[in-house]
Amino acid sequence: MRALIVHAHPEPASFNAAMTARAGETLRSLGHEVVVSDLYRMGFDPVSDRRNFLEMADPAYLKLQAEELHASAKAGFAPDVQAEIDRLLACDLLILQFPIWWLGMPAILKGWIDRVFACGMAYGGGRYFSKGALRGKRAMCALTVGGPRAVYSATGLYDEVEQILFPIHRGLFGFTGMTALEPFVVYGPNRMEQDARRAELDRFARHLEHLDTARILPMPA
Amino acid sequence: MRALIVHAHPEPASFNAAMTARAGETLRSLGHEVVVSDLYRMGFDPVSDRRNFLEMADPAYLKLQAEELHASAKAGFAPDVQAEIDRLLACDLLILQFPIWWLGMPAILKGWIDRVFACGMAYGGGRYFSKGALRGKRAMCALTVGGPRAVYSATGLYDEVEQILFPIHRGLFGFTGMTALEPFVVYGPNRMEQDARRAELDRFARHLEHLDTARILPMPA
Repeated sequence: MRALIVHAHPEPASFNAAMTARAGETLRSLGHEVVVSDLYRMGFDPVSDRRNFLEMADPAYLKLQAEELHASAKAGFAPDVQAEIDRLLACDLLILQFPIWWLGMPAILKGWIDRVFACGMAYGGGRYFSKGALRGKRAMCALTVGGPRAVYSATGLYDEVEQILFPIHRGLFGFTGMTALEPFVVYGPNRMEQDARRAELDRFARHLEHLDTARILPMPA
Repeated sequence: MRALIVHAHPEPASFNAAMTARAGETLRSLGHEVVVSDLYRMGFDPVSDRRNFLEMADPAYLKLQAEELHASAKAGFAPDVQAEIDRLLACDLLILQFPIWWLGMPAILKGWIDRVFACGMAYGGGRYFSKGALRGKRAMCALTVGGPRAVYSATGLYDEVEQILFPIHRGLFGFTGMTALEPFVVYGPNRMEQDARRAELDRFARHLEHLDTARILPMPA
């Protein structure tokens, strides 16, 4: 199995970085191949516009989906986008590793999605959900949230984290035909002692070792 | 009243650009002051990390919230961030104008939020929801979605747009104490004839002229 971990945290010594490192070790020890796109380290540019393309089908008016289709047919993506498309298409398992910021992904990760999940590559031509272009791949979010667990519930200030991630699960993973696995969430690692952080990393490793038993999120057909 | 429109579309001739232009005209005609942060035109950098700060309280380990607090006390934000913080703090009405991409904001807009809604400025010190640092301001999303309306419903492929925007409404507007107004949504402007597009722009103008009657989204105390 080939795993792609897309890692989005600006601090190399962060708990998110420890999660990505542990995921890599765990999956490699199981015999899998692991590629990490460390977006901050790569200096990945998350802004989606004309820069995505080597040439424009219509230089006068930017329609991103039309240009993506054109670039898909002509191998016309900018090199930084094409490299990530290649990694995405080659993987069997996609892990998005990030700290939740404002109940969503850091912009650098959102932009990786905006630019890399291109029409003609990740979807298009009636290929979505059960007919999705990326069917056969599995995908999951692995994330940290700042607040304690109680804040994220139907009776708390926010909704369940799984519901907050609906745009990613349904709109990205499901839409493109990937099998969406339950997210792995660590609540408030910044307030944990070292022992508790190590226990959470161990829990993550066990989760990845038994990914075949992870809950699959339901999708429309 | 001072309005800040944060505009996030890469094509200057887009329907989103027409919405921002019409909002500006409408609000100015009512006697309000309007400032537009046109993120693509500004070349706004959406990546949040050490670049946000003129100096680091702890150069060895990046904790964004701690650095934001430090920068708030020392006027230590990078000029591009400080300029947008000033615009945010000065406004009475915030409009986020964007096309929905992957059921969320384009990365350039998410990064504006990641960098500008800084701890010590937009929240912090127990100031949230009804005690929020930005209370007294109103905020709304004005957006286009690619699909038809029927796709966005409890029985469609996705949820209602208002529910999809929960992270922005609850986690950003509500959390910082702003009064969250119902979103203004245009479905599928790319498939509309010019007459229908003009009618949607007229509907937007009328909505802004009667913003005092816009539905207010409920928030926890």
